[in-house]
Amino acid sequence: MSKEITSRSADYSQWYNDLVIKGDLADYSAVRGCMVIKPYGFGLWENMRDTLDKMFKDTGHVNAYFPLFIPKSFLSKEAAHVAGFAKECAVVTHYRLKNDPDGGGVIVDPEARLEEELIVRPTSETIIWHTYKTWIQSYRDLPLLINQWANVVRWEMRTRLFLRTTEFLWQEGHTAHATRQEAIEETTRMLDIYADFVENWMALPVIKGVKTASERFAGAEDTYCIEALMQDGKALQAGTSHFLGQNFAKAFEVTFADKNNKLDFVWATSWGVSTRLVGALVMAHSDDEGLILPPKIAPMQVVIVPIYKGEEQKAEIDVKAKELEKELKAKGIRVKYDNSDHQRPGWKFAQYELKGVPVRVAIGARDIQNNKVELARRDTREKLFVSMDGLAVTISGLLDEIQQNMFHKALSFRDQHITRADNWNEFETLLKDKGGFISAHWDGTPETEELIKEKTKATIRCILLNNPAEEGTCVLTGKPSVQRVLFAVAY
Amino acid sequence: MSKEITSRSADYSQWYNDLVIKGDLADYSAVRGCMVIKPYGFGLWENMRDTLDKMFKDTGHVNAYFPLFIPKSFLSKEAAHVAGFAKECAVVTHYRLKNDPDGGGVIVDPEARLEEELIVRPTSETIIWHTYKTWIQSYRDLPLLINQWANVVRWEMRTRLFLRTTEFLWQEGHTAHATRQEAIEETTRMLDIYADFVENWMALPVIKGVKTASERFAGAEDTYCIEALMQDGKALQAGTSHFLGQNFAKAFEVTFADKNNKLDFVWATSWGVSTRLVGALVMAHSDDEGLILPPKIAPMQVVIVPIYKGEEQKAEIDVKAKELEKELKAKGIRVKYDNSDHQRPGWKFAQYELKGVPVRVAIGARDIQNNKVELARRDTREKLFVSMDGLAVTISGLLDEIQQNMFHKALSFRDQHITRADNWNEFETLLKDKGGFISAHWDGTPETEELIKEKTKATIRCILLNNPAEEGTCVLTGKPSVQRVLFAVAY
Repeated sequence: MSKEITSRSADYSQWYNDLVIKGDLADYSAVRGCMVIKPYGFGLWENMRDTLDKMFKDTGHVNAYFPLFIPKSFLSKEAAHVAGFAKECAVVTHYRLKNDPDGGGVIVDPEARLEEELIVRPTSETIIWHTYKTWIQSYRDLPLLINQWANVVRWEMRTRLFLRTTEFLWQEGHTAHATRQEAIEETTRMLDIYADFVENWMALPVIKGVKTASERFAGAEDTYCIEALMQDGKALQAGTSHFLGQNFAKAFEVTFADKNNKLDFVWATSWGVSTRLVGALVMAHSDDEGLILPPKIAPMQVVIVPIYKGEEQKAEIDVKAKELEKELKAKGIRVKYDNSDHQRPGWKFAQYELKGVPVRVAIGARDIQNNKVELARRDTREKLFVSMDGLAVTISGLLDEIQQNMFHKALSFRDQHITRADNWNEFETLLKDKGGFISAHWDGTPETEELIKEKTKATIRCILLNNPAEEGTCVLTGKPSVQRVLFAVAY
Repeated sequence: MSKEITSRSADYSQWYNDLVIKGDLADYSAVRGCMVIKPYGFGLWENMRDTLDKMFKDTGHVNAYFPLFIPKSFLSKEAAHVAGFAKECAVVTHYRLKNDPDGGGVIVDPEARLEEELIVRPTSETIIWHTYKTWIQSYRDLPLLINQWANVVRWEMRTRLFLRTTEFLWQEGHTAHATRQEAIEETTRMLDIYADFVENWMALPVIKGVKTASERFAGAEDTYCIEALMQDGKALQAGTSHFLGQNFAKAFEVTFADKNNKLDFVWATSWGVSTRLVGALVMAHSDDEGLILPPKIAPMQVVIVPIYKGEEQKAEIDVKAKELEKELKAKGIRVKYDNSDHQRPGWKFAQYELKGVPVRVAIGARDIQNNKVELARRDTREKLFVSMDGLAVTISGLLDEIQQNMFHKALSFRDQHITRADNWNEFETLLKDKGGFISAHWDGTPETEELIKEKTKATIRCILLNNPAEEGTCVLTGKPSVQRVLFAVAY
């Protein structure tokens, strides 16, 4: 193929990398594990970010900004948190460089050593709860509904573009409440917002659930999650919302006086999604020709390509194309008219297919005579010949249809890949031959969970919200079980 | 005063800190030199950021994201750049923590030392031009008009909230061009955008000019700047736009093939403004009662405060107030109706004055009978009794008037503080007694510039764009001079 994209069947992992790089979403950088988000990929992220930001604000949240650095000692204040996060971190130890007296460029000035090392935030609970201590005195200061858009760093050993990078962009909500009940409601409210966003904007169906103890966020009482399924049958955690109980309030001594002037510790939540979602989007929808982006968040929703011979035809098409471009823009549609001279239409077609533009409009001289144009939809690769009359309305409707179709296609694939396994043989065979989510009984112990992970790489992705009680026997140990849980190999 | 704000005359510097902290813009943090931007302050920054972002996009720029970390060796690649930036930096030397075997929490794992230290970006020219090398091959790849919104770190010894913090938020544009002329045009285009934004949104008049060699950005051929004047007579650099020539292209070997297939180095610009602008806004406009925010970027443009006795009056006012709130929102005006019970109107008045809300609407029961309300404008502290008929239109007009008035007040102050000095005695006296910008002859040498700085702390803020030629003698050395330049003591 001229685009030189590896096919999914040949090498799924390489296919993914090809799409990210050749689709102009991101690039490798000079810093191990860090990527450069290219303008096209960043445009996609901006649309995702702006949509989420509006959803957060519509539910009463406000943005703020906390420091990039966390004093090392802060990480130790919450017992579970330190175990989970004080490991692979970027550590700032010095604050000055100087000229190498031996002429070898610049070196770290040994005299400029920090008294206490600073950690580049892997997540901000500690520095934020340290701050909340001074902001919260009374029930009148609650709830505090704050979100932050920020970069964070986790020193990952094995990295993948978007899916797992040393530095990534995300949002982290950190809320403070007067009651346990209110904090739990906030946790599930945000989970619902994430699910709404991923399903209705990213066209990606998700399963809402709660994590087992061993998969919980370090410092949480409960971690809620949304799990999505990729085309290779692996699951991907698309967002998490944590009920933190009073753990961080206790660690940082954050109390409030209630209406009766009685002191209590504050209840907390935190929740986040990251640029990892871009990776999920690519993996879930795209094909061997390139990216397929859902219209609602595609940086470019429509591209118009003129097909002409000679200047006269070009001028004639120009008029029609610019008219259409204007009409589409007036409808708020993100459109590009590509009338550049130095590439042929065929090259442009391939290029915009690779970049996943939902609708391509091709206008030729004969089309104008016939008052028709060719629309090509990226999701199905169908071509439609439609009238130029009311074309903007036709295209607008087609974009909606593509959005719906992408969701239903992914939903149908996902639903076909939730399978029950009732014994170990079935479990292993399903994992090997079919993949996807496996609904199976588990004896409820972390030991069995770990053993299954060792044997198969599959982890418990979640226990469904409102999971039905069902008596059974653990798929591995045969011990009694009260409910099924969802297993999968995950990214 | 009940708000406990230090007055400007008593201690200008403390007045500024009081406004930032008590006006809820920012807070100190646990990390030396880093601040927390509180929701109200961040809302202000969001309005500034979104306005600028739209201006950048309207002129063809796109956003991208480059790594937080820069390999130490990169800083050494451009000779002037290393001298300017490889000094007070946050240096990452390790990538892992471990439990202290002596039980003292966590310690840096000495085994996890990086082969090459990473610098937390103080600015991103080096990592970006390293990346551009792979993105640019031909004139068809140019111009590259990329901007990044990011956090940067410069290890400042003396910090001030917003004005000079170790970590700050900013945008940095990095563009690549085929010709010197095009790059210079881009540099001045962005300077014009900054000036437009600061004058017409922040209501702060600026002087456009070019820096002397010693005040230039490290690695630039020319640094253009906008300079604003604060109420204490000190200048503040509000934005810079750099023509980088081919310096970074040469350092990172970025060449392109022109139309004749001839290789040349790429021409570059970079330009940035930061959260420092928030500090400028506070210092330029506010008074001893609190912040005064320009309507166009104020997070809250209008606040409605009900004045009532008893539930019956409250209910009656509620209806009118909510009607007004709805009308204002329909006009796109950011309004808050504060009907909270636990504070008296007087307390609320003081609070919203402190926070600089441009227009306060007070509605009492008698006002409703008279079909009138009281408007209080924050800039002049005037009170107006106006009809309830067409109130939203009246308020909208008042917001425009406040925006204009704030600009003209600042402009008049600034213009009264540009003074000519023709000898050293005048120069020193003016600086001491009046402050502001001093227009004076300078012999053009860095030595004299440095000597004046040592004697008076005044620096050359800029040489005006299109500065008229004027023969004269240097205010310090008496040597011949061909033009006046602008001196000031600066933040």
